[in-house]
Amino acid sequence: MPLTRRTLIAGTAAASVAAHIDRAAAETPAAGTATPGIYRYKIGSYELTALYDGIWYRPIGDSFIRNARFAEVERALDLAFMPHDKLATPFTTLIVNTGKKLVLLDTGTGGQIAPSAGVLRDNIAAADIDPKAVDQIVISHFHPDHINGIKDKDNALIFPNAEIMVPEPEWAFWMDDGNLNAAAADLKLTFLNQRRIFADIAKQVTRFQSGKEVAPGIETLPAPGHTPGHTVFAIHSGEQSLLVLSDTAQHPAVFARHPDWQAAFDIDGAAAVATRKRIFDRAAADRMLVTGYHFPFPACGHLIKTASGYEHVPVEWQPNL
Amino acid sequence: MPLTRRTLIAGTAAASVAAHIDRAAAETPAAGTATPGIYRYKIGSYELTALYDGIWYRPIGDSFIRNARFAEVERALDLAFMPHDKLATPFTTLIVNTGKKLVLLDTGTGGQIAPSAGVLRDNIAAADIDPKAVDQIVISHFHPDHINGIKDKDNALIFPNAEIMVPEPEWAFWMDDGNLNAAAADLKLTFLNQRRIFADIAKQVTRFQSGKEVAPGIETLPAPGHTPGHTVFAIHSGEQSLLVLSDTAQHPAVFARHPDWQAAFDIDGAAAVATRKRIFDRAAADRMLVTGYHFPFPACGHLIKTASGYEHVPVEWQPNL
Repeated sequence: MPLTRRTLIAGTAAASVAAHIDRAAAETPAAGTATPGIYRYKIGSYELTALYDGIWYRPIGDSFIRNARFAEVERALDLAFMPHDKLATPFTTLIVNTGKKLVLLDTGTGGQIAPSAGVLRDNIAAADIDPKAVDQIVISHFHPDHINGIKDKDNALIFPNAEIMVPEPEWAFWMDDGNLNAAAADLKLTFLNQRRIFADIAKQVTRFQSGKEVAPGIETLPAPGHTPGHTVFAIHSGEQSLLVLSDTAQHPAVFARHPDWQAAFDIDGAAAVATRKRIFDRAAADRMLVTGYHFPFPACGHLIKTASGYEHVPVEWQPNL
Repeated sequence: MPLTRRTLIAGTAAASVAAHIDRAAAETPAAGTATPGIYRYKIGSYELTALYDGIWYRPIGDSFIRNARFAEVERALDLAFMPHDKLATPFTTLIVNTGKKLVLLDTGTGGQIAPSAGVLRDNIAAADIDPKAVDQIVISHFHPDHINGIKDKDNALIFPNAEIMVPEPEWAFWMDDGNLNAAAADLKLTFLNQRRIFADIAKQVTRFQSGKEVAPGIETLPAPGHTPGHTVFAIHSGEQSLLVLSDTAQHPAVFARHPDWQAAFDIDGAAAVATRKRIFDRAAADRMLVTGYHFPFPACGHLIKTASGYEHVPVEWQPNL
């Protein structure tokens, strides 16, 4: 319901006397809905749209970080005004318009993870983007919040015309039945979810080797640890670049500030830490523009190296392209 | 131009063969426009909409901070990825819908300060708010970026039905012809701008004493220094509150981190510092939700007290109300 006096007046029996209505007595209807989470910016001639899929408050226990006392974790959460029993996990996907192609990097939750997430489709509509116009989907890794948005709850493709490109080592690890059978019960669910997503569309999926371009100006870089095939992206156009960090760190208030912390959801915690430091050191030293999938919306900014870790510095919201 | 395949196809001579067009060969039209800077949230039953007016890169010299060496200032700017020769100055106004009234706190630049600002009217439209439906405008202080948006460039009222409420000590200081005559040349321009805005609407202006409510649940609090009548607001509904800091600190990367710094634009620098520390100490100690007029959009968050100053912690973007 638009928040206008006109709307209010249209609801009265005598619109012709509208001008005489006592304004002070008229109630103001609430909008009742959130505003879209969309943010557009440019890298060279490429037009990028950050698209929010919402936020999941992921339940955590006191063993959430494998190598830190929970009291330390609680201190980090307090400094970020985050709750202690769940990790604020926002999701921001990115559509790159190269002028020739629309490329979607990761696909959100598809509304299949938490009631507070799954608004990607609304935000794509608010950004005037037709899901049918997306030419390529490029996946960073196979966790459900990155791949579930390939399909809706009824298993139908949300972006029906898109080629789906996935990291070869990610496919190799998760599609291996030996790995599935050896997995602990909760990780087994992740394996089974991937089979649900990919089983009937395997022929439409292209596997890429990290280190190559998946589209002009979109470079893929191996970043293993969080998962074996976890991939980051570098987008180049003209003189400008953006480093897409994927899950190199989840929420920066926790994992950029504490780069040594190994989360329970990292497949190889030590490798995840080494990858994080390698990539963040480079991004901070070169003052690169970065975006992180779980950084606060619109998720774009820079990294500063501090005595104990890194600080994420969000970009200022630009009102023009 | 919406970024849809449909748009592209509609432009071809043979839409009926659209399904057969080689997708890879079709170019993808750019949107070419920024996305709206609007963010809605709730305080109790009140619905608040943060409305971005854009950003001004305000030219600064090496005497910009009266009581700090410019090398120190440059270090602060570097840490925030801000340029050295101009201060990134974003503007976020706030509309409060109390259910009974629409109250606008400060009015933006009216497009009269910088080409990169003045998008408030576009954003009000994007938020489906009718400017005619605004019942009250409440002004924090009389600097041009807070009052110019009362009128457009042609001196017409942008919110024609709004009562305009201003702090009594602010009116007394700036409308005093003795103060005008005694002012330095650049400050004289500020006095003259205020006369342009208020001269022909003085009868529609209500002066309020700080410490009182200007609308149910909207409390005014004196915060002198930046200007003599500079005012902050506390919004209360149900069990929730928001402290509207106005210009108690301008950009937090400079003035929250360095609360002792006195800017050239403060009328009484020492009083501005004392006010800043008093209010920020309270906000940090009570972990209050705050918003600042020159904080990065959507400008809402919390303050943490550090060894040397304060850190602003932006809120997570919530996809639901």
